Amino acid sequence: MKLLAVDTSSIVATVAVMDEDKLIAEAVINNQKNHSQRLMPLIKEVLDNSNLSPADIDVYAAALGPGSFTGLRIGITTVKAMAQAMNKPVVGISTLDSLAYNLPFCNSYICPIIDAQRNNAYTALYIWDNNGIKLHNEHAILHIDELIKKIKTLQRTTIFLGDGINIFKDKLNENLGSLGVIAPSSVAIPRASSVAALAIKKAKAGELVSPEEIVPIYMRKSQAEKQFEEKFKG
Amino acid sequence: MKLLAVDTSSIVATVAVMDEDKLIAEAVINNQKNHSQRLMPLIKEVLDNSNLSPADIDVYAAALGPGSFTGLRIGITTVKAMAQAMNKPVVGISTLDSLAYNLPFCNSYICPIIDAQRNNAYTALYIWDNNGIKLHNEHAILHIDELIKKIKTLQRTTIFLGDGINIFKDKLNENLGSLGVIAPSSVAIPRASSVAALAIKKAKAGELVSPEEIVPIYMRKSQAEKQFEEKFKG
Repeated sequence: MKLLAVDTSSIVATVAVMDEDKLIAEAVINNQKNHSQRLMPLIKEVLDNSNLSPADIDVYAAALGPGSFTGLRIGITTVKAMAQAMNKPVVGISTLDSLAYNLPFCNSYICPIIDAQRNNAYTALYIWDNNGIKLHNEHAILHIDELIKKIKTLQRTTIFLGDGINIFKDKLNENLGSLGVIAPSSVAIPRASSVAALAIKKAKAGELVSPEEIVPIYMRKSQAEKQFEEKFKG
Repeated sequence: MKLLAVDTSSIVATVAVMDEDKLIAEAVINNQKNHSQRLMPLIKEVLDNSNLSPADIDVYAAALGPGSFTGLRIGITTVKAMAQAMNKPVVGISTLDSLAYNLPFCNSYICPIIDAQRNNAYTALYIWDNNGIKLHNEHAILHIDELIKKIKTLQRTTIFLGDGINIFKDKLNENLGSLGVIAPSSVAIPRASSVAALAIKKAKAGELVSPEEIVPIYMRKSQAEKQFEEKFKG
C-alpha cells in the first residue's frame, strides 16, 4: 500500500510517501507560510523523488489539525482534491498525535504544543506504550499557565515539541526547570513521515473514509466566526 | 550559523539545512542508489526550499560512514567541493551516531545496524543520557550472530534501526523475541536533520576542520582492495 501524507497545519509544509513499512521520500519546509504556493510543487517534488505519479498512490492522508486555520484548509483541500480525482480513499490524522509520534520509545511524557494564539496552546499529553503513543491527557486548548501548572502537578519529566516551543520556550524553562525539556530541532516540527506511519496503521485497520468525509479539527471557532456571531447575536 | 548537511552512506540520500536550533528544510530519498545523479539536484531542492544559496551556508556537514563505499565517496566529495569553493569549514559526523540521534529520549538501548555484507553489520550500542546519545559499546563490525549474542547477554530491550534491518529483521525477531524491537519506518533510516543537529553541536564546540581534512570512516578495506592485496602479496 502506497500512501501520500501531507501536513500544513503550522508554518511547516511537509509531504511524505510511504510504502507499507518503508519511507520512500519526504520533504520538509519550515521557513514561510505560503502553503498555497508551495504545497503542490512540494508534492510533485516528493512524488518525483519516489519515482511515482498520483495514479500509483493507493491512499491519501492529511494532518487534520488542530493548528493554523488557513494552513489546514490548504492541506486538507489539496488531499481531498487529489484523492477525489484519483478515486482513492483518505485517512485523517490528528496533528497532536503525529507530533507525539516523532518521539518513539520516549522515556518521558510527550507534550506537543501548537500555537493557539493569546498565550494558549492546542495540546495533549502522551506516553509511549510498547507499540505506540497512548493519550494520558485528552486534546485541549490550554492557557500556557494552566499547562505549566498541570505538568508541575504530575512531577514527571515532559518533552515539549511543536511550533509552540518558539513562543513558550523561555516560560517553560523558567517555570519547569528540569521537569520540562525542549525536543531537539531535528524532531521538534511536524513530519509527514509521522503522519504517514500513523495513517498506514489506520488504513490497515480499515479506518479509511471517502474524501468528502474528512474535516479539519479546529477545536474552536476562528476569530472571524467569533466576531461574526458577536456582531449578529440577538 | 546556517549549516547544510548531507548523508549518502546508504541507499538513502538526504540533505538538510539547519539554522542554529531551527530545521529550515530537509529532503529524504530512499528508493534507488544513484546518488551521483540525485545528490546535487537534491541539494539544490533543499537550498531553494530554504530560500538560500550556497553563499549563505556557514558550515558544511557530511555523514562520514561507515556504510556504502561508493555512497560515502559521493557525499563527502560533494560536501568537500562545495565547502572548498565557498571557502567554508566542515564538520564530519559518524553515520552510526546520527542514526542513533533519530531516537532522542529513547527508553532502551539504541542499536544502529548498517549492512557490511556477508551477514556482517557496522554497529554500535547507545543509550540516551540527558542531553544526548552516549556510546555503550564502541563502533565495530560484527557478524549478526555475534551481535545477537551480545544483546542476549545484556538482557535489555534494544531498538534496531538503519538499513541492516531490511536484511536482519527476521533473524533479530526470531532470536531476540521481545528483547529486540525494530524502529518505526518514520525514524528507521538516515536523516540529514540528525546529522545537522549533531554537527551544529560540534561546530559550536569549535570542532570545525578544513574541507581537505575530512575522510570517510570505512572501518575496513573494500573488497577490491582486499583482492588486490591478495593477488600481489609476497
